[in-house]
Amino acid sequence: MKKIEHIGIAVKDIEKSNDIFKVLFDEAHYKIEDVESEGVKTSFFKCGPNKIELLQATNSDSPIAKFIEKKGEGIHHIAFAVDNIEEEIKRLTKQGFEMIHKTPKKGADNKLIAFLHPKSSNSVLVELCQDIRD
Amino acid sequence: MKKIEHIGIAVKDIEKSNDIFKVLFDEAHYKIEDVESEGVKTSFFKCGPNKIELLQATNSDSPIAKFIEKKGEGIHHIAFAVDNIEEEIKRLTKQGFEMIHKTPKKGADNKLIAFLHPKSSNSVLVELCQDIRD
Repeated sequence: MKKIEHIGIAVKDIEKSNDIFKVLFDEAHYKIEDVESEGVKTSFFKCGPNKIELLQATNSDSPIAKFIEKKGEGIHHIAFAVDNIEEEIKRLTKQGFEMIHKTPKKGADNKLIAFLHPKSSNSVLVELCQDIRD
Repeated sequence: MKKIEHIGIAVKDIEKSNDIFKVLFDEAHYKIEDVESEGVKTSFFKCGPNKIELLQATNSDSPIAKFIEKKGEGIHHIAFAVDNIEEEIKRLTKQGFEMIHKTPKKGADNKLIAFLHPKSSNSVLVELCQDIRD
């Protein structure tokens, strides 16, 4: 794990939350992106070498809608940057971690991503992410 | 906010969790510290420019014991590094954020810290932290 790539935060109303985080960071979000496959609308804030990703559900089947229904708004996941996501999935699987995605998939912000199941990572939803190379 | 200084994770059994995160990061924690004033035992893992702080309650009045009772184990707070914590508290208070600590206090890992109330920061418990200068 090279660094915390971003922290994902589940929100009900991304425009209202963009205003809150703009004041918190003293700087507006730099990107809005829809991830249709996940049923989410996202916005990204820079914070030095790290990012904050706000996530709003775009339909009631979205994992974010289910998370908010169960736990309310708040921190949803931690994403770690890795150099080689396939190697990291292999290493962690071998060590007994359960992957939600056994093969990487395309995520927001030009990344290959894979989530670990929180039951094997101390109830923390962990995402691995690797930049997509051109 | 200069970067994510650390993510705080509430755990029931810090020794068991140290083992899990050691495998996740492929590297052991570098420090254990008791913060008596908060009723917590902490351990720290490095992740590039960022850290992960595991927090276990040492008594039943600890905020961590209450958090786990209510929400279970998992991500507890995000701490952001700031250059001047007093200035940042002033700026955020002026902008309508509610501080749990209106003046900085001594935290773990040689920091001055102050928490924002999650009700003004989108249900996210946010910590500001500044290195203590010698």
